[in-house]
Amino acid sequence: MTPAAEIERRIGRLREELGRASLDAAVIVQHADLAYFTGTNQQAHLIVPAGGEPRLLVRRVLDRARRESPLARIAPLRSLSGLAAELEDVGAGPGARVGFELDVLPAQAYLGYAKRLPGIELADCTAAVRGVRAVKSAWDLEQMAAACEQVRLACEAVPGLIGAGVSEAEVQLEVERELRRAGHQGQLRFRGFNQEMHYGQVLGGPSGAVPGYSDSPLCGPGPNPALGKGPDGHVLEPGDPVIVDLVGGYDGYLADQTRTFAVGKLADDLRRAYAVAVDILRAAEAQIRPGTVPSAMFADAERMAAEAGLGDHFMGHGPDRVRFLGHGVGMEIDELPVLAPGFDEPLCEGHVIAVEPKFVFPGRGAIGIENMYAVTAGGYETMTTADEELIET
Amino acid sequence: MTPAAEIERRIGRLREELGRASLDAAVIVQHADLAYFTGTNQQAHLIVPAGGEPRLLVRRVLDRARRESPLARIAPLRSLSGLAAELEDVGAGPGARVGFELDVLPAQAYLGYAKRLPGIELADCTAAVRGVRAVKSAWDLEQMAAACEQVRLACEAVPGLIGAGVSEAEVQLEVERELRRAGHQGQLRFRGFNQEMHYGQVLGGPSGAVPGYSDSPLCGPGPNPALGKGPDGHVLEPGDPVIVDLVGGYDGYLADQTRTFAVGKLADDLRRAYAVAVDILRAAEAQIRPGTVPSAMFADAERMAAEAGLGDHFMGHGPDRVRFLGHGVGMEIDELPVLAPGFDEPLCEGHVIAVEPKFVFPGRGAIGIENMYAVTAGGYETMTTADEELIET
Repeated sequence: MTPAAEIERRIGRLREELGRASLDAAVIVQHADLAYFTGTNQQAHLIVPAGGEPRLLVRRVLDRARRESPLARIAPLRSLSGLAAELEDVGAGPGARVGFELDVLPAQAYLGYAKRLPGIELADCTAAVRGVRAVKSAWDLEQMAAACEQVRLACEAVPGLIGAGVSEAEVQLEVERELRRAGHQGQLRFRGFNQEMHYGQVLGGPSGAVPGYSDSPLCGPGPNPALGKGPDGHVLEPGDPVIVDLVGGYDGYLADQTRTFAVGKLADDLRRAYAVAVDILRAAEAQIRPGTVPSAMFADAERMAAEAGLGDHFMGHGPDRVRFLGHGVGMEIDELPVLAPGFDEPLCEGHVIAVEPKFVFPGRGAIGIENMYAVTAGGYETMTTADEELIET
Repeated sequence: MTPAAEIERRIGRLREELGRASLDAAVIVQHADLAYFTGTNQQAHLIVPAGGEPRLLVRRVLDRARRESPLARIAPLRSLSGLAAELEDVGAGPGARVGFELDVLPAQAYLGYAKRLPGIELADCTAAVRGVRAVKSAWDLEQMAAACEQVRLACEAVPGLIGAGVSEAEVQLEVERELRRAGHQGQLRFRGFNQEMHYGQVLGGPSGAVPGYSDSPLCGPGPNPALGKGPDGHVLEPGDPVIVDLVGGYDGYLADQTRTFAVGKLADDLRRAYAVAVDILRAAEAQIRPGTVPSAMFADAERMAAEAGLGDHFMGHGPDRVRFLGHGVGMEIDELPVLAPGFDEPLCEGHVIAVEPKFVFPGRGAIGIENMYAVTAGGYETMTTADEELIET
């Protein structure tokens, strides 16, 4: 269970953000946000007034919400028609500005609320919610450490699983089992529309270089075009790089870590690219502290890749490159801050970022490294601890 | 790859539905719908004019879309600002009614389109899209048969995995591995907002009776309150029912099947409930043919449960019961038609429905059975073929 003090802290921070955004209240309905702010994931509306006590209104299951959430005020709400009265009761009646999670709320639901809440301005509280969630407490970090331990353990199993003649898909399924045995929760969460994730991925040889819909340097062909992401069953060959980008999951929290392996010896240019990726990671680490501007970290990494003559292979190849170096991680894999152009709000203590310099070589594969860091008052702490050596089997 | 004739059939059916709904065009962006109507899953807009050729406008990855989709017209669209011109070009400029998938499109995106498409009425094409997708072709059914074979194979492994002292979570992870080894694609798709699924679930003893957010008879406590669904690690005891509700995945298509096992002997009343579930399934089968009204199938099942004295345990317990008997399955697990009150449009040839009578006993567990059926011209074909006996180990 999430400690009451933790829920109180989160709600308190959200209230501050609502005040700053001139919102009278927020109505939270998305599952990851509900779990974060209430400690339970029910079919429910969480009303957080900028200046009053939050109330969790549950369609189903009320008993469970009461058992799992430390919130004081938990009541049934069987029908949406009661929502207007509840909002009015907390001082957010007609004339109020009420924030909804417009980045994830389906349009049908949005239009439904607009109809049922006449006189209320439906505003967007996405920035407030994501901003609060980006800053992790000591308790959050403890849960994330357990998720990090899962990806460390699964990574240790990889050298024993890969080899010439083995299908990358088989490595993927055995690594998934290792994650599960290490306590992985199974389901993972992506906030972005249309984004999907399944334990991360093992991409061998050419699969690592297949671009796709995902807004990341790796995508892979996928088991079929309908999914379009992940391994496709390439049979590993001597010299193949095998990039293992795994996502742990514990108590709702995620961990993101990438390591590179090779079947036998890796070609010299790929070995060198791996060394450059490690250099970029070390340079990024040297910048991680409160006050650093995320977009500047990306610019420096991009410059280093270009100076190493690898600009066209950095974070994808050619026109399929993505312009980012890393991202926040928490209960969703795509949290704030993003290390990319346009993200100029400085890092602060409690941010958790995955930094993932990667290089892509069409027809040959991808290599790279990714660690997750907690930003501390004095700098950072590395959360993902698997061996960082390029392992040639 | 999806055959060109298949894509043509699907687009043709969508065009008819758009005409019927007085829509000038549809703009499709959600991944399952994109995969269904184009054969590929890229970051893209598919414009389907009611009376012209479809065009797939790709942000990324264009080459891949061209390789994977049999559509003739595939072009780049790097920025949303070009969408209005493309729509105008197919006769859906200002004054037109254009359908969007408002059940899944995030509100932010909806508001963004509204701004970028002045003069165009943004309508809802959800019903048209879901209606087309509900009717499967012979080719669709072949893919789904492969997914059904996965759940049959995984189910066969269950008796060897369960036993007193074994954790339900351990059974779950081994069953997941069996599914993967049988060719499971990994990722699964739920259309409903906030709904999540991970290979289906193995729920032993009391876990089977824990209700939650899911709109289904089974939920389970989950590995943590943040997820709130699935097994929690209950250690199996003699007499525990173990309900195994598995979802196969092949080529984007899903299969849904439930079987019940027991650790040692099951109590007489639970054995009897299982027999009633089988009776309800047989009675439902006798109704499956074009013309049958889904809501009537539910009403009959509910009546049979009540007559057996099990009304309060049918599809959940007491106030946590859900009022449905089954659902459509395809590339998403929650397709049309739904066998529930309010769903009065008759079954037709090509519908695929999962029928899942289940009984829930608080503190003891759940028992039930679920098969997936294809509605044929003369009746039905059973798609899920695992042994239907209650297996006591």
